[in-house]
Amino acid sequence: MRRPALKTSGVAELARAARDASRALARTDADARRRALSLMAGSLRSRQAEILAENAADLEAATAAGLSEAMLDRLRLDAGRLEAMARAVEEVAALPEVVGRVDARWTRPNGLEVERVRIPLGVIAIVYESRPNVTTDAASLCLKTGNAVILRGGRESFRSNCALGAAVSAALDQAGLPPAAVQVMPTSEREALYQLLQREEEIDLVIPRGGEGLIRAVVEHSRVPVIKHYKGVCHVYVHAAADQEMALAICENAKVQRPGVCNAVETILVDRAAAGSFVPRLCRRFADLAVEVRGDPQVRELGGEQVVPAAEEDWAAEYLSKTVAVRVVDGLEQAIEHIARYGSDHTESIVTADRAAAERFLREVGSSTVLVNASTRFADGGELGLGAEIGISTTRLHAYGPMGAEGLTTTKFVVRGDGQVRT
Amino acid sequence: MRRPALKTSGVAELARAARDASRALARTDADARRRALSLMAGSLRSRQAEILAENAADLEAATAAGLSEAMLDRLRLDAGRLEAMARAVEEVAALPEVVGRVDARWTRPNGLEVERVRIPLGVIAIVYESRPNVTTDAASLCLKTGNAVILRGGRESFRSNCALGAAVSAALDQAGLPPAAVQVMPTSEREALYQLLQREEEIDLVIPRGGEGLIRAVVEHSRVPVIKHYKGVCHVYVHAAADQEMALAICENAKVQRPGVCNAVETILVDRAAAGSFVPRLCRRFADLAVEVRGDPQVRELGGEQVVPAAEEDWAAEYLSKTVAVRVVDGLEQAIEHIARYGSDHTESIVTADRAAAERFLREVGSSTVLVNASTRFADGGELGLGAEIGISTTRLHAYGPMGAEGLTTTKFVVRGDGQVRT
Repeated sequence: MRRPALKTSGVAELARAARDASRALARTDADARRRALSLMAGSLRSRQAEILAENAADLEAATAAGLSEAMLDRLRLDAGRLEAMARAVEEVAALPEVVGRVDARWTRPNGLEVERVRIPLGVIAIVYESRPNVTTDAASLCLKTGNAVILRGGRESFRSNCALGAAVSAALDQAGLPPAAVQVMPTSEREALYQLLQREEEIDLVIPRGGEGLIRAVVEHSRVPVIKHYKGVCHVYVHAAADQEMALAICENAKVQRPGVCNAVETILVDRAAAGSFVPRLCRRFADLAVEVRGDPQVRELGGEQVVPAAEEDWAAEYLSKTVAVRVVDGLEQAIEHIARYGSDHTESIVTADRAAAERFLREVGSSTVLVNASTRFADGGELGLGAEIGISTTRLHAYGPMGAEGLTTTKFVVRGDGQVRT
Repeated sequence: MRRPALKTSGVAELARAARDASRALARTDADARRRALSLMAGSLRSRQAEILAENAADLEAATAAGLSEAMLDRLRLDAGRLEAMARAVEEVAALPEVVGRVDARWTRPNGLEVERVRIPLGVIAIVYESRPNVTTDAASLCLKTGNAVILRGGRESFRSNCALGAAVSAALDQAGLPPAAVQVMPTSEREALYQLLQREEEIDLVIPRGGEGLIRAVVEHSRVPVIKHYKGVCHVYVHAAADQEMALAICENAKVQRPGVCNAVETILVDRAAAGSFVPRLCRRFADLAVEVRGDPQVRELGGEQVVPAAEEDWAAEYLSKTVAVRVVDGLEQAIEHIARYGSDHTESIVTADRAAAERFLREVGSSTVLVNASTRFADGGELGLGAEIGISTTRLHAYGPMGAEGLTTTKFVVRGDGQVRT
């Protein structure tokens, strides 16, 4: 399965093949792409033995190299996980069509009929860690939206990805779509990735999926635009008019349901008016859950001696673990200011029964996802109903927040006339 | 009016002031911004004498420096032009609101109500040539959409721009909006511009408006994303089923109505089936209009001896003058291929009475504006009904084609719940 290292010419060829494939894909109709996705799911099932064998070889090497159990778990495939991947491909196939959709239509006084029509972006590169499921998730969403894709996963999953890539290629071939529509990079050398990221003529967008280190490395080496979020320093603000039972449930869920992900809460802001009763209950709840609380002086006073003093850097920390910072604020204004200063434009939630306060928070907090009376953990493409998620952006150009199929497209102007000229 | 050269610290301060102003602007309501725009129009009128005096000083220096008549004309203001600028500001004030608009709304099975709501991008830098009208056009569209803007025009218009900037500042002050919402860079030194383009923490987007040289210089020096189009190599394809009178009128309009702009046609493709009758008429028409035709061998044979032989580079040329390349193609397929190979993703038009051919052209040509039976000259934000145009993009990220108010915004996710947590 392992092929020789790519030379620069190899990377250029790969990128050019993707560009050519994207032109052909842009001319396919939705049925052809849907059929290819259905064949892709079948191909994953029929090649199960081969894919699991390559994955076992990856796992063996990764175990020998001393990877952590968490990393091995992400790398591991079995019949159930592979079936889940095939089903996810079928779910993407069944999503509503985005390409060709007319987003707006109007007629000009001179009779010109103007439309804005959704079209694919072109060529997408996805750079990710050793999680083989990303290979088929990303390939299917790109193919669904008529984009060619270049996939570059972590080196520990190289053989698994090549086997998955071969299964995808077989499906494309059967569907009569260009084989270069989905390409797994045939090397996991870092130098080849960096060369790829220079190919701005052929690649329209890079989406890194993984930790901050991976994302920073991609941004630093890329001439191609990058959709990214470095961090998720998410907040829950417990307002004076909060239902405290609800607030406790949301704080608990946002912190402990899955502490290692970007939409977990990292700082809880408690309104001074609610603090006297709420902070002791919150600290007890977190003590029961083995969550470390780092608090400002008021929180330490109210929460007891298990509260660790918070330092300035705690307000900007993305713990990704069972640690949380808690601060008492003087009201909505100070909560909004705290979030603007220390937040990462990812996700913030207010808990309140006061509708005016909620609406002001939703309007004035500029983060990509803002919620009222709900856990920050809902900031996710699937949970918000986008069907699937290809990435999350905390910068405002092109996409902001969770990004699904629509984010992989743009619009062109289509104009129909009957001989109009400009005077 | 002229102030001392900016040091690096000065550029940083300017950028940080814009970022702070953008945060304040994002919290203003539409009425406040509309009122500021109305005051801005009034301020341009009441400061007419001062603005025209500064413009006269710019013109005098530019004349002494030997600028071309065309450049002097772009630089020149008079009472009529200033009034037109004030009216354009009022037209922007009257445009429908984009910020706060709910683009989509749905409810999840768990009861969460999800909205995508339009918000400003943040801080926009506009880099342009010596055209003082861009100063107020760009300032008004950015302010309308809640964005702070940094304006950097050509050095020949420096005094005019400072006077216009002072008029804008007075209006902002009167409206109670932050003065740094609109800032004219207080120097026209190139080094200060290059420093500004490094400030990716404070500036969200750069839009260069001008010739290819200006745009390339901005792209080369910018760490901030750039909305750009280098060239407009636009095509008209005269199909076999074209109404030839209509085709002649469209070719003439697209070439000569204003040859120096990016949406003028540069290459005309004539279907072989129409060539025998159409090419001689086209060449006679262009001869009457003093347009130089550069043709392939068939065009030379049909068009007579005034046709200059076209070289390979003519197919990729952006003449911006009364010169046009003409080629005979074998049909729709070859026309689409020619455009994909030599075009610049700007604007292409097909002339045909065959509806199926028109729809195929509109679907398969990937350029940002595609038309049927209309002049390429309509590829313009105003003409297409966007209200105003801040730039044109021929790359697909964030915006593609003419970009108006909506292009200066993005969406955030607003989620309303009643205590939902994730399970």
